[in-house]
Amino acid sequence: MLNICLLGCGGGMPMPFRNLSSTLFEYKGRKILLDCGEGTQVSIRMISWGFKSIDVIVISHTHGDHIVGLPGLLSTIGNSGRVDDLTIIGPKGIKEVVENLLIIAKYLPYKINILENEEEINLKLNKEKGLEVNDKEWDLKINSIECDHSSPCLGYNFYIKRDRKFNVEKAIKNNVPKLLWNKLQKENSVEFEGKIYNPNMVLGDSRRGIKVSFITDSRPVENMAEFIKESDLFICEGTYGDDKDIEKAIKNKHMTFRESSNLAEKGNVKKLLLTHFSPAMIDPKEYLENIEFPNYIIGEDRLKLSIKFEEENN
Amino acid sequence: MLNICLLGCGGGMPMPFRNLSSTLFEYKGRKILLDCGEGTQVSIRMISWGFKSIDVIVISHTHGDHIVGLPGLLSTIGNSGRVDDLTIIGPKGIKEVVENLLIIAKYLPYKINILENEEEINLKLNKEKGLEVNDKEWDLKINSIECDHSSPCLGYNFYIKRDRKFNVEKAIKNNVPKLLWNKLQKENSVEFEGKIYNPNMVLGDSRRGIKVSFITDSRPVENMAEFIKESDLFICEGTYGDDKDIEKAIKNKHMTFRESSNLAEKGNVKKLLLTHFSPAMIDPKEYLENIEFPNYIIGEDRLKLSIKFEEENN
Repeated sequence: MLNICLLGCGGGMPMPFRNLSSTLFEYKGRKILLDCGEGTQVSIRMISWGFKSIDVIVISHTHGDHIVGLPGLLSTIGNSGRVDDLTIIGPKGIKEVVENLLIIAKYLPYKINILENEEEINLKLNKEKGLEVNDKEWDLKINSIECDHSSPCLGYNFYIKRDRKFNVEKAIKNNVPKLLWNKLQKENSVEFEGKIYNPNMVLGDSRRGIKVSFITDSRPVENMAEFIKESDLFICEGTYGDDKDIEKAIKNKHMTFRESSNLAEKGNVKKLLLTHFSPAMIDPKEYLENIEFPNYIIGEDRLKLSIKFEEENN
Repeated sequence: MLNICLLGCGGGMPMPFRNLSSTLFEYKGRKILLDCGEGTQVSIRMISWGFKSIDVIVISHTHGDHIVGLPGLLSTIGNSGRVDDLTIIGPKGIKEVVENLLIIAKYLPYKINILENEEEINLKLNKEKGLEVNDKEWDLKINSIECDHSSPCLGYNFYIKRDRKFNVEKAIKNNVPKLLWNKLQKENSVEFEGKIYNPNMVLGDSRRGIKVSFITDSRPVENMAEFIKESDLFICEGTYGDDKDIEKAIKNKHMTFRESSNLAEKGNVKKLLLTHFSPAMIDPKEYLENIEFPNYIIGEDRLKLSIKFEEENN
């Protein structure tokens, strides 16, 4: 199960009723933060999810409303007792920006690894050190897409692999000795008494994992529907609710509710979460009629969602 | 009259109930901001004092909790329509830090002038452009003192000059022609029909202005009592309320309530405003008994005060 909390759903400027862009993922006790606008720390404190287990920070782009909370957050993570490396992922230019911002967060007790403009990143869950970047193995894969915004910007999707189910009947049918069952369940081949046993001999069919996509800030882009395809959750910017703001959306490289929802429709996603509302839009719910996709949620600060694996309860 | 709003009274980390260090002065419609921790922008928005008229930003030191809100605020000031220069004042190192932070607030529509480690700064009120640094003339003078903290840090006092009152009897007694009265009131000497007239011929005694001092973060320092002497308001850090935290205060270069209040007593100030509370101190009011100065206020986010000139209503 992936737990998600929308820490801040505002764009542009922080408002008394709305923090800036920030979303937190929690998977098996470890955390990935997506964007870090002003107010991120306070929201994390309000939901009590903790700072120490934030292993990865993914930044869409380096506009202030998506990154200004970073140096403060990195300090607070330092104060939480973290000593394990932390990974920051972002678009072209992220290294320079982070290095500049670190001037007010010197002497952190952990190392920061920055991955700039990567198309695909494997994260492997280390029981002690949390989510770590790994060349080959992965529990969670992050893919990126180039957005169309006024600065280099990446959209991301996150895919959590689901383990294959152990199939006793299959193991017996394939004459796999019981003492190998546990090893093979971890998907390694084993040689025993001159014979090689592989995981396919004991595991059921591969099962669909969880896919979440995150696009902010951007105009709709041609290959975006394919990129977000069949996401369990599509977190998408909807800077403007009113159709009349389409010219502003084009000029400022954002989307209207209609555009975001059309994209959700094309991508055949399961659920759309709208966020990154313009400070001028006090109540996004005034524009619900412009949303052309049935299964949507209007973001609110600290709104929580859980995405389960399919038929997880069966 | 000087209006003051304590925008944030927290130190260290932003909390759901307490923003980080930030105080706003308003004098004749123009603003000076003292420190700019996370939450500054939201507090300014909540009190509706506006962004465009912030002419000067004074930074005590470059620890994150005192400056992390700066790039976001500078962007918002830019969005407010400001085109006039803005002055940033701070300790040694402020230029490098601001230049680094500006990587996420590029393309501001106004120029920033940074004054580093200055002992005395004159600000003159320009009716159109607000408070401007001036070599000779001044309406408001800022003096600084070196603090004892873990990074270069300045304490400040602010002195607002009060105009001398026009004295009709004196003007008549000194045979000053009526047509010179207005000019002389502005404190310029005038030559008229071969005779030089000076402001002393028409103006009453000099009158005391308004003095406000601001010390955070620091241990008490020997010449500090003299520096804050007879302030109408002394805004001082009181990171720890409990006397038992004195060792922490010494180690982390802060003050306890007892120390701040002793300093207020020595400086013979009129009023003490305690601020910069440790995140570990949920309710500073638990430690009132440690405050050895009668006229104090415990800071709260968005607490407002007005300091009037003496006998202003007479």
